[in-house]
Formats: sequence, C-alpha cells, structure tokens
Amino acid sequence: MFYHKKQLQYFTPPDRPDPVYAKKLQELIGGPMGEMTVMMQYLFQGWNCRGPAKYKDMLLDIGTEEIGHVEMLATMMAHLLDKAPIKMQEDGAKDPVVGAVMGGTNPRDVIMAAAMSPKHTIVSGGGGMPEDSVGVPWNGRYIIASGNLLADFRSNLHAESQGLLQAVRLYEMTDDAGVKDHLSYMIARDTMHQNQWLAAIEDLQSEGFEEVVVPKIAYEYGKKEAAYQFWNNSEGEESSEGRWAKGTSMDGKGEFEYVANPQPLGPVPTPLQPDPRLHGTPASPAMQKTSDAAPSIVDGISQAVEGVGETIKRTIIGG
Amino acid sequence: MFYHKKQLQYFTPPDRPDPVYAKKLQELIGGPMGEMTVMMQYLFQGWNCRGPAKYKDMLLDIGTEEIGHVEMLATMMAHLLDKAPIKMQEDGAKDPVVGAVMGGTNPRDVIMAAAMSPKHTIVSGGGGMPEDSVGVPWNGRYIIASGNLLADFRSNLHAESQGLLQAVRLYEMTDDAGVKDHLSYMIARDTMHQNQWLAAIEDLQSEGFEEVVVPKIAYEYGKKEAAYQFWNNSEGEESSEGRWAKGTSMDGKGEFEYVANPQPLGPVPTPLQPDPRLHGTPASPAMQKTSDAAPSIVDGISQAVEGVGETIKRTIIGG
Amino acid sequence: MFYHKKQLQYFTPPDRPDPVYAKKLQELIGGPMGEMTVMMQYLFQGWNCRGPAKYKDMLLDIGTEEIGHVEMLATMMAHLLDKAPIKMQEDGAKDPVVGAVMGGTNPRDVIMAAAMSPKHTIVSGGGGMPEDSVGVPWNGRYIIASGNLLADFRSNLHAESQGLLQAVRLYEMTDDAGVKDHLSYMIARDTMHQNQWLAAIEDLQSEGFEEVVVPKIAYEYGKKEAAYQFWNNSEGEESSEGRWAKGTSMDGKGEFEYVANPQPLGPVPTPLQPDPRLHGTPASPAMQKTSDAAPSIVDGISQAVEGVGETIKRTIIGG
Amino acid sequence: MFYHKKQLQYFTPPDRPDPVYAKKLQELIGGPMGEMTVMMQYLFQGWNCRGPAKYKDMLLDIGTEEIGHVEMLATMMAHLLDKAPIKMQEDGAKDPVVGAVMGGTNPRDVIMAAAMSPKHTIVSGGGGMPEDSVGVPWNGRYIIASGNLLADFRSNLHAESQGLLQAVRLYEMTDDAGVKDHLSYMIARDTMHQNQWLAAIEDLQSEGFEEVVVPKIAYEYGKKEAAYQFWNNSEGEESSEGRWAKGTSMDGKGEFEYVANPQPLGPVPTPLQPDPRLHGTPASPAMQKTSDAAPSIVDGISQAVEGVGETIKRTIIGG
Amino acid sequence: MFYHKKQLQYFTPPDRPDPVYAKKLQELIGGPMGEMTVMMQYLFQGWNCRGPAKYKDMLLDIGTEEIGHVEMLATMMAHLLDKAPIKMQEDGAKDPVVGAVMGGTNPRDVIMAAAMSPKHTIVSGGGGMPEDSVGVPWNGRYIIASGNLLADFRSNLHAESQGLLQAVRLYEMTDDAGVKDHLSYMIARDTMHQNQWLAAIEDLQSEGFEEVVVPKIAYEYGKKEAAYQFWNNSEGEESSEGRWAKGTSMDGKGEFEYVANPQPLGPVPTPLQPDPRLHGTPASPAMQKTSDAAPSIVDGISQAVEGVGETIKRTIIGG
Amino acid sequence: MFYHKKQLQYFTPPDRPDPVYAKKLQELIGGPMGEMTVMMQYLFQGWNCRGPAKYKDMLLDIGTEEIGHVEMLATMMAHLLDKAPIKMQEDGAKDPVVGAVMGGTNPRDVIMAAAMSPKHTIVSGGGGMPEDSVGVPWNGRYIIASGNLLADFRSNLHAESQGLLQAVRLYEMTDDAGVKDHLSYMIARDTMHQNQWLAAIEDLQSEGFEEVVVPKIAYEYGKKEAAYQFWNNSEGEESSEGRWAKGTSMDGKGEFEYVANPQPLGPVPTPLQPDPRLHGTPASPAMQKTSDAAPSIVDGISQAVEGVGETIKRTIIGG
Repeated sequence: MFYHKKQLQYFTPPDRPDPVYAKKLQELIGGPMGEMTVMMQYLFQGWNCRGPAKYKDMLLDIGTEEIGHVEMLATMMAHLLDKAPIKMQEDGAKDPVVGAVMGGTNPRDVIMAAAMSPKHTIVSGGGGMPEDSVGVPWNGRYIIASGNLLADFRSNLHAESQGLLQAVRLYEMTDDAGVKDHLSYMIARDTMHQNQWLAAIEDLQSEGFEEVVVPKIAYEYGKKEAAYQFWNNSEGEESSEGRWAKGTSMDGKGEFEYVANPQPLGPVPTPLQPDPRLHGTPASPAMQKTSDAAPSIVDGISQAVEGVGETIKRTIIGG
Repeated sequence: MFYHKKQLQYFTPPDRPDPVYAKKLQELIGGPMGEMTVMMQYLFQGWNCRGPAKYKDMLLDIGTEEIGHVEMLATMMAHLLDKAPIKMQEDGAKDPVVGAVMGGTNPRDVIMAAAMSPKHTIVSGGGGMPEDSVGVPWNGRYIIASGNLLADFRSNLHAESQGLLQAVRLYEMTDDAGVKDHLSYMIARDTMHQNQWLAAIEDLQSEGFEEVVVPKIAYEYGKKEAAYQFWNNSEGEESSEGRWAKGTSMDGKGEFEYVANPQPLGPVPTPLQPDPRLHGTPASPAMQKTSDAAPSIVDGISQAVEGVGETIKRTIIGG
Repeated sequence: MFYHKKQLQYFTPPDRPDPVYAKKLQELIGGPMGEMTVMMQYLFQGWNCRGPAKYKDMLLDIGTEEIGHVEMLATMMAHLLDKAPIKMQEDGAKDPVVGAVMGGTNPRDVIMAAAMSPKHTIVSGGGGMPEDSVGVPWNGRYIIASGNLLADFRSNLHAESQGLLQAVRLYEMTDDAGVKDHLSYMIARDTMHQNQWLAAIEDLQSEGFEEVVVPKIAYEYGKKEAAYQFWNNSEGEESSEGRWAKGTSMDGKGEFEYVANPQPLGPVPTPLQPDPRLHGTPASPAMQKTSDAAPSIVDGISQAVEGVGETIKRTIIGG
Repeated sequence: MFYHKKQLQYFTPPDRPDPVYAKKLQELIGGPMGEMTVMMQYLFQGWNCRGPAKYKDMLLDIGTEEIGHVEMLATMMAHLLDKAPIKMQEDGAKDPVVGAVMGGTNPRDVIMAAAMSPKHTIVSGGGGMPEDSVGVPWNGRYIIASGNLLADFRSNLHAESQGLLQAVRLYEMTDDAGVKDHLSYMIARDTMHQNQWLAAIEDLQSEGFEEVVVPKIAYEYGKKEAAYQFWNNSEGEESSEGRWAKGTSMDGKGEFEYVANPQPLGPVPTPLQPDPRLHGTPASPAMQKTSDAAPSIVDGISQAVEGVGETIKRTIIGG
Repeated sequence: MFYHKKQLQYFTPPDRPDPVYAKKLQELIGGPMGEMTVMMQYLFQGWNCRGPAKYKDMLLDIGTEEIGHVEMLATMMAHLLDKAPIKMQEDGAKDPVVGAVMGGTNPRDVIMAAAMSPKHTIVSGGGGMPEDSVGVPWNGRYIIASGNLLADFRSNLHAESQGLLQAVRLYEMTDDAGVKDHLSYMIARDTMHQNQWLAAIEDLQSEGFEEVVVPKIAYEYGKKEAAYQFWNNSEGEESSEGRWAKGTSMDGKGEFEYVANPQPLGPVPTPLQPDPRLHGTPASPAMQKTSDAAPSIVDGISQAVEGVGETIKRTIIGG
Repeated sequence: MFYHKKQLQYFTPPDRPDPVYAKKLQELIGGPMGEMTVMMQYLFQGWNCRGPAKYKDMLLDIGTEEIGHVEMLATMMAHLLDKAPIKMQEDGAKDPVVGAVMGGTNPRDVIMAAAMSPKHTIVSGGGGMPEDSVGVPWNGRYIIASGNLLADFRSNLHAESQGLLQAVRLYEMTDDAGVKDHLSYMIARDTMHQNQWLAAIEDLQSEGFEEVVVPKIAYEYGKKEAAYQFWNNSEGEESSEGRWAKGTSMDGKGEFEYVANPQPLGPVPTPLQPDPRLHGTPASPAMQKTSDAAPSIVDGISQAVEGVGETIKRTIIGG
C-alpha cells in the first residue's frame, strides 16, 4: 500500500517557459527508457519477486522512489508549458525590427506555436502526459519482470544506462539554469542506480544465485560446440580483433573461437504442402482445392493428413 | 548489402505438429526479447556505429547472423503448424472410448483448434508471423541503438539474458525431441552472445571508452551528494542488507549510504494558473473565461502573460 | 513523493490456482478500464491540477490508493498462476477413467496449458503483467487529464462505471470463494468511487465552476440553432420517445427539438486540385506533372499556387 | 444498412490554407476523443444494444450523424492543406526585408514546411488521415460498448465533454473566420450531445433500469463497510473539505466517512516459490533447477506441486 | 452526410452459438484486412478524391456499403456469443459418461469458456468489437488514401484479395450452415469488389491517367540502368525461370535483365564523428566530451561544426 | 542463412545536412509502405512459400535486396543528421542582419532544432530509427504473408506502388542534388519491382494457379446473384459511368449490373437477451439480475440457457 507526501523529492523551476523543450522532455516521462518505465518495471519486479526479502524490499524501495520522479517531471512540464503561445498569430512582440519582418509577430512565438506538441494544448491544457517526445504513448511492453533476478537486474542496468544517457543529452540541449539544476539531481540518482544494479548483480551472484550466463541451466541444455564460436557473417575481419574473438570466454568455461568463413549447418528447407482448405499456393495447380464436392487429389492429401493424425493420436493420446 | 544462402544455419524438424506450441514459439520470433528484436537492434547499431571498425564489423556480423535465426524459427513454425485441425469438429479420432465422450471427436484436436492462434490459419495459412505469443505485432520501440556503445552493449546483454531465459522456458515446455534439439542450438548461440556482450564491454573499457557509469560526463553534471544514496522508500529495512547499501560504490568513486528515513528535498508545488483560453479549471471561478468579448479578469491575466512574454523576448531575442 | 508499506490494502488468497482465470483477471490490471488506468489518470490529474487545493489533494489521495490496487491484483495473479501446468503433457492426473480417455493426462491441465496466457510462463515466470486479458499492453492513451475538472470528473465517473461493471462480471465468472471475497472489497471501493465522482461534480458546480455543458464558453461559441436538435439519421422514429427528443434541455437553456427528416445544411464539396508535385490524381490527365523540365500546364498551376502564396504573405507577414 | 448524400451536414471553408493548423485539427478526427471515436462508439453500442428499441434507434441515429462529422473534418483538411509549401526552400516570398534575412524564402513557409505533418504530404497527398494531432493512429481501444447502457451513456457523456473541450480549444487556437464558423456548428452539436446523454441517463433510470451505482448488483456483492470511506493517502487533509468526505452518499444508501489516517487491512504478502522449470529466482540457490537429470531438491518441490495438483483434481474433476 | 436503414444488407443467423468461432470471426471485423479497413479506406479515399466525379462517387458508394458489412458481422457476433459459458464450471452437462470424466462438466463448455475471447464477456458483454481475432485493436495505419487513384485502386485490389481469402478460410473453418450462408453472401460481394477494382484500374488508364508504373514521373526521375534488372541475392538461380527475369518488361519500356552475381555499386560507408554533446562513441576516446569547462579536442570538432554551419548558412541564408 | 558485404548497393551523400528532411525520410524506412515493410514482407513470404521453387527463390532474392535498402537509408540518415543544431540557442550565425532580428541566432537553426525529430538526438544520437516520419514505430501488422501467392503478389504490387509514390514525393520535397541522386536509384528499383510483381502475377496465372478472383474457390462458395452487382449507396449516379458498372466483368464470368436504388435484403435484427450475469441492459428492468440468492425471473432465463445448452450438447457431443 502506498502513501504520498506533497513535497517533491527535488525541484528547481525553469528560468523561463519553453514549450518546445517541454515536448522533448516528454521522452524522460513516457519514452521506452523514461521514468514511467523504471517505475513500473521495478514495481512489477518487486510485486512478482519470489527471492530473498532484501531483493524484494530493494525493488519496492526504488520503484516507489521512481513514482516521485514522474511527479517531479510532471511538475516541470507545467512550468515549461506555462504561457505557451497557442496561436501562430500571438501578438506579444512589439519589437520594431521583428515587426518589420514578421508582421508584428514574435518569430520565436511563431516557431513555438508551430513546433510544440499540439497535445500539450488541445488534450492536456498545459500538463505533462504519459507519452514520449513525439507523442507515442507509453505502453506496458516497455517493461520486463521475468522472475529471474539476474536477468532482471541486467535489464535494469540497461534501462538506467540508456535513461541516464538521455537525461545527459537533454541537459546538453538547454541553457536554462533551472532545468539544468533539476536534471542534475536526476542525473545523480541515475548514477546511483547504475551503481546499484551493478551491486545487486554482484550481491546476487555472491549469494550463490546464477553464474555468468543466465539461466545457468543453459550450460546443460545448450549444444556446447556452438557456445563459444564467433561467426563472421559480415565480410571483412575487423571483428577478429576484439576480446570476443579469442581467449577464455567470460564465463571461464570455454575458449572463444573465430569462425572466419561460416557455413550453414542445416539443410535447405523443403516446403510442406498446405492444407487445401486454407487455399495457399501448393507445389502444383492440381493440388489446389477447387470444389467442396469432389476434391479428388485433395482427398488424397486429406487422407495423408488423417494418417498423420492417427500417428499423433497414438503417440499422445495413447491409442 | 546482403546475400542469402538457402541452407539454414541449423535445423531439426519437430517430431510432430503442435499448433498450440507454435503459438507459444511466436514469442521467440516477434516478442520484445525475440529474434526480430536482436536482429534489428544489432543491424541498426551497426549501421549507426561511429566508433572503431572492430565494433561496427562485429555488430554487423551478429546482426546478419540473427536474420538467419528468424528464418530458422519461421521454418520451424511451418512444421509445427502442418496439418493443424482448423475446425472444432475435425473427425480424425476414431478411438472408441474417446468417441463415447466427445462424440467422435479427438479431444486434443478440439483443444488445438480452439487454443491455437487464429492468425495461423486465417491470416498466414500455416506460417510464422512477426508477432509475439499472444499475437501482438513486433514493433520498432523494442529496439535501441543510441550511438553510445557501452549503453548499447548493456542493452544487448539484457536482451540476450531475457531471450535465453525465454528460450529455456520454451525448452522446458515441450517433450518433442526435435524441437528440443533445435532449441538446444539456439540456446548455445545465446550462451555465446551473453559471453560476447560481456567481452565487448570489457574490450570497450580497455580501449579507454567510458567508465562504470555511462556516459561518464554524468560525474561532472550530476549532484554528487545524491549520487551514492540508497533511499528506503518502502517500510522495512531488509534492503539495508545488500551490497548496494554500504561499502565502496561499484565505480570506486564514492561510498554507498543507506537513507533509512528519506525526506523530500523539494517544495510543495504551487499550481500555476492556466491560460484562460484553454479552459482548464483555475483557482477561482472568477478566473474562468466566459466571453470572447469582455474578458475582464482574464484580461488582467493576459496582460501578465504579455509581461512575461516581454521578459522572454528581451532575454532570448535580444530586444 | 511516495512511500510504501508492505501490507496490502486488502487481500484474500484464492482457494486454488487457476491460470485461465488469471488471464481474464489481467483485464482489471492493464485493460483500458483497469486499475493502471485509474491509477495513472488520477495521478496525472492530480499533478496537473491547477484548481483549488481540495481537488488536487483528493485526486492524489485516490491516485495513491489505486497504486495499491494494482499491487493487490499483482499479488492475486501470483497465487492464481502458482503450479500452473506448463506443458500439455503434464502427468499429474492418475485417475483411471481420465487416463483411459486422455492417455494419462488430466484434461483440465491440458486445457489450462493450452488456454492460459503464454506470457505468464514465458515472459513473467508466473507473475501479473501490465496488459489486458488478451495480452495487449496498457498504454498511455487510455488516460485523460485535461486540466478541466468537470470534464475530468466525468471521465473518472465513466472509468469507475465501466471498471466496476467488469469487476462484477469477473465476480460472476468464478466460483472461487477467495477470489470472490477479494473482488468483493474492490467492488466496494469502486462503489465508493462512483459516489465520489458524483459528489465531486456536485461540489465543483456548487463552488461556481462550470455549468451543465462543459466548457461553459460553448454557450457563447456554438451556433444556438443547432444546440438542441436531435437528428433522426436512422430510419424509424423510436428515438422520438426518449427524454432527449422533447421538453426542456438538461441545461435548462433550450427546448429539445426532434428533427424527423434531417437534411444537409452544407454544400456538395468541390474537389481542390492537387499540388502537381504530390502526384495525386487531378481532374484531368493533362494536369498531371510529367516532366521536371517542362511543366507547361503544371506551370500555370504553380503560378496560381504562388499567387495564393503572395496573398497569404500579404495577409500574414504584412507585405 | 447505410446511405450517403453528397452534401455535407454543415461546412464553411477556411479563409486560407494553414497546414500547421491542419495537423492540430487531426486531433478532432482521430484522437481518443475525436469524431472517429464517437462514431464507432455509438455505432457499436447501437449494433450491440439489447435494451428497449428507443435506445437502440437513438444510438444508431447519432452514430450515423457522426460518420458525417468525420466527413466534414476530412473536407476541411483538404482546404487547410491546399497549396502547402512542401519544401523549406519554396521561393514564394519576394519581400525585400524578408529576403535579406531568409535568403529569399518566406519565413512562414519555412516554418510551415518544417512543422506541418510530413504524413500530409508524403502519405495522403493533401488529405486528412485517421490519426491524431501527432500522427498516432486511431485505434479500437478508444471505444467502449459494454452492453450496459448506464455505463455506456456515462462513457458517452465523458467523450462528448472532453471532445467539446478540445473543439473549443481549437476554436481559440485560430483567427480564421471560416474555421471558427465551421467549428461553431460542431460545438453546438456537442452541446446537444452532452444534453442528450444526460437526458438518456435520466430516461434510463426513470424506466427503472439501474440506480446510482452501476451495475446495481454491486450493492449486493460489495463489502458494505468499505463502500463509503474516503481514504486520505496523500498527506494533508484538504480533501476533507469536499462533498465526497462527509454527508449522505450520492446514492442515498450510506454516509461518507473520512479516513484521515488509513491503515492496510491486508497482510504482508508471502512469496510463493517458483516452478523450478521457469528458472525464476527462488528463496535459496539450492532450490534452483540445475540439471534435467538429477533435480534432487527440485524433485521435492515437484512432488509438492503434484500434491497440490491432486487436491485440485479431487476438487474439480471429482476424483 | 449519412443515413441508416434498420434492415441489414443480408443476414442469416447461425444454427447455434459458438463463442470460439466468434473470436475467429473478429478477424473479418477488425483485422488488417477486415471490413473496418475497407470501410475506412474507401471513405477516406472518397473524401480525399480530387479526380473525376465518377471515381469519387464510386468510392463513396462502396465505402458506404462497407459500413453495413461491419454491421452485418456485428449482428452475427451477438448470435455466436449468445448463451456462451462464462465459467469453466458451468454445469450444463448431465451426460453420465461425460460426468464421470469431467466431474459433471460439459467438456466442450470447459473448452469454450477457456478459449473464447475474455473481451467478449468482460468488456463487451456479448458483442463484437473493433479488434482482430487475437484482440489487437483495429488502427488507422491499416488504411491508405494517397490521393493517387492508381496506387489506391491497387491497394484496394490487395485488400479485397486478402480479405476474400480470409473469408473463404473462415468458411472452411465451420460446419454451421447459417454462418456458411451468411459468409457466402459476403464472399460474393468480395468477388464483385475484386472485379470492381480491376475494372477501375482499366477505366483510369483508359481515361489517360497514369501508365503501368505509378506515378509515371518515375520514368523520368529514376536511373534507367537500374529499372529493369533482377538481382539474384539469394544463392541458386531458380528465380531466373520466371517472367520477371527475361523478355520485355511489363510496361513495354525495357528488357528484363537477370543479374546472376550482383555486386554492390556503392562504397563502404565511412562513419561520421558524433556531436560530442550527444555522447555517442567516437573513433577514439580522446574525442569524448569529458568536461563542460575544457573541451580541448572537442573544441576543435566544434569549430569544424561551426565551419560547416557557416557553409550551410552561406548557401541557404544567403550570407 | 545470410551474409553481409560492407559496400552499399548504391549511395550518394547529401550535399548538406538537413535534420528536418531526415525526419521526413523516416517514412521510407519505417512507414507502413517503407523499406522495412517490403523487406519483412518478402522475407516472410519467402520463408512461408510452399509453391514452386522459382517463386520461393525470387521472394528471397528481393527480400534480401531490401535489407540493403534499409541499410542505404540508415546511412543517408547519419549524413542528414550530422551537425544538427540540438538547441534553439545555437550561436552559429553571426550575420549582422540575422543577428538584429534573432538575437544572434540563425533562424534556420532555430527552426531545425524545433522541428527535427527529438528522437534523432535524445534516443539515437544521430541515427535512423525503425519508425515513420512522425515517430510511430514500424510494426508487424504492416506486412502480410498469406501463403496464397496471387493474393500476396497483389499485396506486393500495392506496397511498391505506394512506396514509389512516396519516394517520388520525397524527391520533389528537396533540392539537395545528393539526396535526389540517391533517391533516383531507389526510384528505379521500385520501377523494377512494380514490373516484377506484374510479371509474377502473369507468370503464376500462366502456370495454372488461380484465376482473376482469388482464391478461385470463391466462385463456388459465393452467392452468384450478388457477385457482379454494383450498389449505388451514395446518392447521385456518376458512378454508373465507370467500367465497373456495365459490360462483361473482368473475370469474364458475369455481367456488371448497376443497382441504382439498392434495398436491404436482410431483416431488422431482433436483439437477443443478455446473460443476466453479464449485467447488460435487457429489454425490461425486471430481467436484470439483482440478487445472487433469489434470481426469480433470471432463473427462468437460466433454464432457457441450459435448455439451449442441452441442444448444443446433443448436437455436438453426441448425447
């Protein structure tokens, strides 16, 4: 169960409104690597966690913190969208030179009114929305909660790495000191969170869960001869120079092998004939079903189908 | 530019058709962590790569290999969907006991016809599709290619970890020896690929690119006092027992600090008043715009808007 | 900023696992009318609220409560998915009669394994997900936060009405006493919430915000002669018998009028000719652009375009 | 079955083309609250209606009218997109001052070419599209037709309230007299439609269907002690001042109660152990499945699984 | 403007309810090739048509007819979903043998309740929905209205070909005589519509619009040496045996050429260096931006950026 | 299995960067008619092809070529996005006149920074993405692979027709000679591909597969009396002047008939009564379920339901 305090975790207002920047900042709210993603990802991982209590508690700690990050950004949005020009003919500017060129219209306002997200006026009336910087809505496929904590902690490290990169890019994309200060706090939290997931991976492995390759049963189920080969499918051998192409594998269980001229191990697939009732194109026109009443050749195929059906039945149903 | 050989990288046909399993196997083709994702992710990362040639070549090697993995699964689908019962009244079963119960219908066929994906008959006529195990189409938001290779290699490690976990689960979900052999090869390739991305991360860092936290400029831009704190937002302190709560941080640049009773650092946000023309609810009914002709109070607000506009103009336009 | 307590707001475990029901219950988590919708809708409305403090606080109260409702359902999912059969050949059943028919397989298990969501095994490993009952992910277009509280409270009433209806249907769709008890609590909260939004609408109007039609400026901007007419566009006049067809309008500002034989008020639209450079089909083949070098007729059209351009420029740019 | 007349229900052409406004106007065609939504919502509600004929007929009347509203807006789009500049280097402007600054290019045209929807040139060649103001396509999850008319009429009231608000905002966002006149008609129809759904709700209840809370069976199924409580989950008690916090509930069946310091009623959830075959992280590493051949501890868990399975079987299958 | 008559264009009720078939039939309502697609595609093409009146009228004729096809299928859905079992424990079956096996439950009902779409009970209460056979909602990207009638008529031919194929497959997937009769009428209309679009293509070309390749300006803009070559990118030359590999091209303007061993015509791309402020990985670590204050090498790059900027400015702004 | 060569099939760099054009060019990468669509469509059709080898090989030839087209466009994107202004306050412009108006800012840069896709900086760091010109991600519903080659070749002709039209429009939308040269090659390939699919259709039919209407079984299953009628559902008879309204049908099997005044052939649908447990609105309030304990009238309905159930059982299960 959750509780809310009205103070924000951190907040600095922008020096001035900027509706075009507001549009861009939406990426951090509702983009695939934004705060809604980490919030929902950590909450679902926490709720679904069946491992030791310290992991479950930690996931719910950070998931709960992230709800507040969405809140911080939503509050920032309201400030950035304040007093946005909603028409291309706003007549705020009275500067004489500007007036001569743009017919009395502030050119920056014209651009703002044209380039800001129409959603921010028409739909939200000046508020942030659960969508990204081009207006594509956040969706639940952005998150993963697999129940396997090593796999999930790696997903979390990935999300915080991309998310921090995006936050830094947005920091570079403005000169507004207020926005920069605000982002500076969020950048620090993401710095912590990258450290945190790396620590969680170390902790999990030190507790005896999983090895380098997750899930570790893969060592038993996988074909070992294929488990350490690098296939050079793109002409040129620059890729032979990397750590992945030679030496002991990262899990210490094999040697990397560079396959410079890879060849297929499988056959050329032989097409199976379609069920005539689905009217796909078969190997020959004579095999097309042309009548419900007199299938002739189709009938032969159907009998073959039934024959296979019998085999299946005997095998599975125990006939 | 790309070339195709007709042989498959690897292939073992299933022992028998199984359209319900075919539906499940779609997850590995078109799910968020499936082969289409890694194929498109590595190709776009390779095409967009601006770093050293060995990384670009390696990305295109593996991206090209993954196209063939989609091909392998598409071929498997055709076999699993072969001779699928397309009606609930298929009359294949003649077993007398079954007949007594189900009116001459094979109960497994009834279930198959009811539970297989309708897409596999109506739309594809017996072939695999670019969608996941519930029929949601693959989409481009599943992939990331940021231009920052450390961030992207971590994304790739995440994708291969979740992808391998899913392949293993599907391996557990069948007794078909052919399917298991086929998956066994794919499991081995994913084993390689997890090793590969870990090796690539080590290689990149050994070349002098990036540090533990990516991008490394975050150390300069972020507020240092917030960069190593763990906030305990969920009641209970089990989370204090993890590696993330104490000791030197993973990047060696700080000490983890456990904030047991976290308090907000920001203010209670004060609502800004809405642009009257957007007809949001303001602090008082008197501030609502009720007439185009005589805005009265609204007018005063508009003048304030203009005043702010002037300030913006002076600052930015240089008036 | 948010805090979490580990106890659930309410919880009763199911009497027994039921993975097919789990699939259905996803509708209440991630469907358009589910708990994620009301949670995100109320939170965004609260964060974006610019009206009196009591509304903003109330929105954040209920939004925060709803996070806990997602948590309650996620917990229920883990119980319903516990011990789910993950193969169609699970050999749990040893009942002799069943064995004779199904080859030693429990028929209910076969159905469960075929009809449960594959996502619940392959992707989440036995946990709830942010998606609906057919696996379509929740997305941000499901919510609305317009800034106008009357419009939004009506949206909330709608969401709680559909949501309660769905909860009741799910209550009817099970005989599991634990599930029923759990849903019984959620049904009561939705009962409160329908009452709450009706109360909020009354409160808002009693404070002097908005009238019956929202936003009230519509009375000034709209063409009055069209504001109270009911158009009978479907043959037959059964619709004349309703309250909407006669008597004083609900806002008390007009009389409903039944237009039994409605006729268009507008013209037949005259097609405008396409920009030749976009290669749409024009009124005559001679108007198609066939050469970059010698546009002839196209040239004339282009000049017309320029002419209009000039007019626009003069009007707007002030030339 | 449907018929079409070529005249539009109403139409006024814009004074001049404006492709950036055209982009914004898409919200009223294909946004979640646009005309496609009400058209499809009323048609599906009408087709699915199983209640008295007057409701079914009324739904089909208004659904059919709304098809014409999409048509009206599509026609408006063609006019707004006419002669749109398709390149940033259109050389229409010859104004000497503008020329000095922008190299002979009309700055408004530059902005138009940059900020209009690329879909309107590349894809539709100058026509409206079934998508919203940022180009996200309309989709079927925007509508609801539940079969319960009270729930659906409330949904319709919500759609018309948000839709009218958006139409009014778009009215405020232009100075084009033609567009304003056109919108003025649509605003009036939405005024009618809000009145209509309020009337339909009154009519439905006066006929004896449903009560205040829908569906009314909720009074029987819900836990009464929770049905009138307001939970103060956000610190601060401003929310105690509203109508929802005290007095008789809106349905007249209870008294609102303000729970100032809400406490959980449920337990701390105890994690269930994962099926070892899904390779989620369990409570202890020893419980992980590491071999197909010798599961040891896993085996014990499997037996427990089977035990539960037996219980289920006995209960449900009747063993 | 549109009108509705209550009679259906055609209708035969099913012999019996079948909720699993209802789920499948959704493909024809809201799938990419379903009736909603052709309805919306023809209506938007008609509204956007700028060509001769006979085409515009024809498009609106068929678009209007298709609204009625959605209606016909929605009505069929209600019949197929009537009396659907909503629980796995419905106790309709009293057959003694069935009873012994399934604990008194009708096995077909169990399957129905498990395999039907949960949306059809929880969301629509027994009605059709704007979504496909797996519940993915219809969306506006399924349709195209380009303004070029030859391109669009080809799109329409494609839609009717796939749509008819799917209708035939659904015809094969049932033994219900009522459903078959109903589909038989729809199959005939699709037969007409394939004929119709072929006729429309012939008509358009006979009127002098467009040639074989659309738009015909492609003959001028395209590199002629590449316009008739077939590239054999997949090993093996079976493809040389087709009509596309030899002889006069279909447009009569060239000769097909079979390129048996295709080689790239372009260069190996040289990576451009990233803007240091975006923190992508550059060619060397020294080029990474590590400090806002002292960019050193970055500074040099920035100057290069500015240099290019100057060039752009001179070219475009006319400096 | 696939291989990659580093050279591009063709490439000409743009004369200068243009991030707004880059945004538009995304339509050709990830739009519904873009290169990802044809690439995935032809690959899936090839993998799923069960017809003669020449078709399968041809599909894989062209599918493989199209992967390289995505690569060509991705490379173009990097050039167009190079040195893009990422802030509205970039201070590249020092032109004195510009300076006077825009405060030292290049107005083109301001527009570029405002109107380019934010994804191209924040997410991809200067690279192309798998999405369209407004940022909506490519998805798997854009493609079709039905197994019926005539239907699929028509789909391919449609995709190449719309795709070429869009490429030509983008050619018209730039003056950059490099971009035009690059597009010129792609336009030529699409010219080939339209020819190719027309040739493939001819080839398929000459081999004896399918006739004019696909699938040909439609001639047997469809109601012949409805198979050649044109219904004039839109008032006015301009549509009677087209080839589709008179003369022998395109398949030579019938005569087109113009139905000037079409009338419904079906009945007015009679609403079925809802299952009381789903709480839809029935014909009368007395039929609503109001109590779990004492359903009275509901009970009668339930018995009717059971009765029907019995009928179903007898028919299908064989009772």
